Formats: sequence, structure tokens, C-alpha cells
Amino acid sequence: MISVVIIGYGNVAKHLIDAFLKADNITVSQVYCRSINKIEHLKKTVATTNSLALLKDADLYIIAVSDDAIAAVSSEIKNKNNLVVHTSGSVSLDSLINTGRKGIFYPLQSFSKDKEVNFNEIPFCLEAENKDDLVLLEKAATAIGKKIYHINSTQRKQLHVAAVFVNNFVNHMYKIGHDVCNDFNVPFDVLHPLIKETAAKIEFLNPTEAQTGPAKRNDKKTIENHLDLLNDTQQKIYKLLTKSIQNG
Amino acid sequence: MISVVIIGYGNVAKHLIDAFLKADNITVSQVYCRSINKIEHLKKTVATTNSLALLKDADLYIIAVSDDAIAAVSSEIKNKNNLVVHTSGSVSLDSLINTGRKGIFYPLQSFSKDKEVNFNEIPFCLEAENKDDLVLLEKAATAIGKKIYHINSTQRKQLHVAAVFVNNFVNHMYKIGHDVCNDFNVPFDVLHPLIKETAAKIEFLNPTEAQTGPAKRNDKKTIENHLDLLNDTQQKIYKLLTKSIQNG
Repeated sequence: MISVVIIGYGNVAKHLIDAFLKADNITVSQVYCRSINKIEHLKKTVATTNSLALLKDADLYIIAVSDDAIAAVSSEIKNKNNLVVHTSGSVSLDSLINTGRKGIFYPLQSFSKDKEVNFNEIPFCLEAENKDDLVLLEKAATAIGKKIYHINSTQRKQLHVAAVFVNNFVNHMYKIGHDVCNDFNVPFDVLHPLIKETAAKIEFLNPTEAQTGPAKRNDKKTIENHLDLLNDTQQKIYKLLTKSIQNG
Repeated sequence: MISVVIIGYGNVAKHLIDAFLKADNITVSQVYCRSINKIEHLKKTVATTNSLALLKDADLYIIAVSDDAIAAVSSEIKNKNNLVVHTSGSVSLDSLINTGRKGIFYPLQSFSKDKEVNFNEIPFCLEAENKDDLVLLEKAATAIGKKIYHINSTQRKQLHVAAVFVNNFVNHMYKIGHDVCNDFNVPFDVLHPLIKETAAKIEFLNPTEAQTGPAKRNDKKTIENHLDLLNDTQQKIYKLLTKSIQNG
């Protein structure tokens, strides 16, 4: 049985608490949130606190707060040699300044408040300073999920940049597509199947092989026609991405 | 029963032939391909030709050739008042210069050679010059699919630009993510669940609501860290898209 304290109550923390409460081999010993009223409803199920000085003893402290707050929060976890991890894709292991052992427990997914999460589908990117701690993190991750990766801090940073492209920037492409449709009263949902298929394809095709379209074909006439329909910012993006596709 | 002649033997044509051959209420009267040897294997099932002068009589001629060839091919369909349609997202109705009636039969999807297609999931964007022809196209589309949209040529052009963003450019974002991972030996498949979720979200969230990440949060430190890890072209794209997200 692994005892876990969850620090924070944002999207990641909430989904982790839900999953850990249902998991065998895991006891959620305590949940910390700065605003105690936000976790009031958890009191029946689990101990709660809004004071880092009052953290209970546990095998694993999971800091799931905003990136900027990780260092400060970790510095308050004193006089304990227990394992402290954070859940961020972009913060290094060194940013943890607790007195004890350190690690990373990064579930690589875009979490939404109201959307249920299937942790079996989510990769856990784990890192620790020693092998025993890595084993502990693996046990915690496999208690709620299936996909376990050992990713060091350098790789995790790289992965996070890649995630910005395949998630944040992809979503922005959807946004532009949405805007372009709206301008001419075209229902955006006509594009849903294409969006789904584009994402599905990448599981069995290399993105270079999967590339199609006027940029790839160097179909200048279509490219010109498209540019005519776009506003300044959209044109800039269209041109830059077309060029980048053509340069491979 | 609707009799159909399919002109062309690219990805779209192949998938349409397969689907129409299985459909009730549709007879595939003939398949045309410039290179007769490519359709040799169809001979057992359906009449074939490599001469546009020898096209059989049919209710519907579907031109599924490359965009550039549509006008020339349509001009060869003479002495027939039957309905001629093309399957392209970016070519206008006027580009059809057959003597008879004209229309559009555009299945909005990215077709791959070896990947099976479920036409029930694919939107058919239909256009015709008169109501009877639109009804005919609806019948042909519902014989193999379910999602029928009436999209005029202006809307279709707009839709095609939007499709470039949500398909071609999204795939290029995957490509950059893939490159960034490769540089540091990070397995790209760690990102598959995120890619899937990003696409799935857009079916129930507006892309503006779905936007997350350092650009949206204006997290300058993370943005700087990310730029340090990218090459020149990647940096340009990162900066431009970050700015565009921030300007809404």
C-alpha cells in the first residue's frame, strides 16, 4: 500500500485524486489546497488541509500546482525525507527544493475540468533520482494507468515543446478553420470527421508520409486562391507553414 | 436504380467504386481510366474503358481525377445531357465544361491508398444547378453514406481552406513534434493519446475554449525555454502561432 498526499486542486490534481481514491494499493492520506473551501466537499472521504506545515506523513507527495508555484510549495515540505514529485511537463527536477527525495510524475495529457479522464490511455512520464524511487512511482502510476515511460528532464522538456505543437498549435489550426468557416456560414462540424481521421492516421503513418495538400503538391493556383480568402494573420500563417512543408 | 460512371482511378475514385459496387440502388455502369492496365482487374466486375469517347450512357458521371484535369476531362463528355459532377473541394462548378448538367459530389475526407474508408463517417458536400439533380446526388450519397450537406461553390472553397488548416497544417504540426522528439530520442508515440484527445475535444468544445498552453497563459519563461530548443524555422512558426493565439 502506497500512501499519497496530493498538493493542489487544479485539473490534474482533481483527476488524480478521483483515480487514486478508486485504486487498490493506494491510500490518499491527505489533500492540500490553499483555499480550504474548494476541498470542503472532500472532507468526508479524505483528510484535507490548507497548511503545508500540517502535511501528514506519506510515501509520496504529489505537487500538482501551477508551474510557477512548484518551487515555493516544495520548499515548504521540510523535515521529511519522503519522495516529493511534481506533475509538470516543463519544470525541471531541480526546481523541487524540498529537503527529501525528488521525482517527476507527469501524466502527458490535456486535462479538461468537466471531461472524464481515462488514465489507462494516458502516458505517465516518470523520473526519479534513484531506482527505488522510480519503482515506487511506477507502482503509483500502474495503480491508475497502464502506459509508463521513463523520461529524463531533458527529454521531458523536448516532449513538452513537441506537445505544444501537437496540442496547442493544432488547436489553433482548428480555431482558424473555425473562423474561416464562420465567415461564410459553413458549419464547422463538416470538418469533424477530417479532424478525427488526421489524428487517427498518425498512429500508423509517419507525418511526412501522411502529408497531403496544395503545399505538398506545390499547387500554386490553389495556394493563390486560398490566400485570397484569408485575412492578414491567416495569410502569414498559411505562407509560413506552406513554405515549411515544402522545405520538408 | 441510379447508373453511375466513374471517371478516374485515384484514391477517391477507388474508394467510391468499392462503395458503389456494394450499394443497393446503384449500378456502376463503367469505370474510365487513362491507363487501362490499372483497371484491368476490374473487368470481371464492371465495364472499363480508357476512351472518353466510349463512355456508356448513365444517370451520373463522377469525375474523380486531379483538379487540373477536371476541365479537360469534362469537355470530352459531349452529346449527353446527363449529370456530370466532380469530387474536388477546390474546383468550382463552372470548371465543368461538359454540354449537360453539372454538379459537385465532394466527400470531405483525406483518403489514403491502403486505409479502409467508412463512408458513413464522411460528409458529402453536394451542389447542383437544379433541385432534381440535387435529389439525384442525395440518393447517390445516401446509398453509400449518411452525412449529407448542401454546400455551394463559395462555401466549398471556404471549407477547403479550412480543411487545409485542420488537416494539412495540423499534420505539419505533428511533423514538427515528431522532429523535436527525434532530436532527443523521445518516442513520438508518447504523444499519440494527446493528439487523439486534442482532436476529440473539438467535437464538444469551441476551439477558443479548448485553447491551453504557454501562449494562452502568456507564460514568457516557458516560451523562452521552448524557443531555445527549436531550430530557425521551428522558432519562426512557434513565434507566429504564439502571437496569433495571444491576439485571439
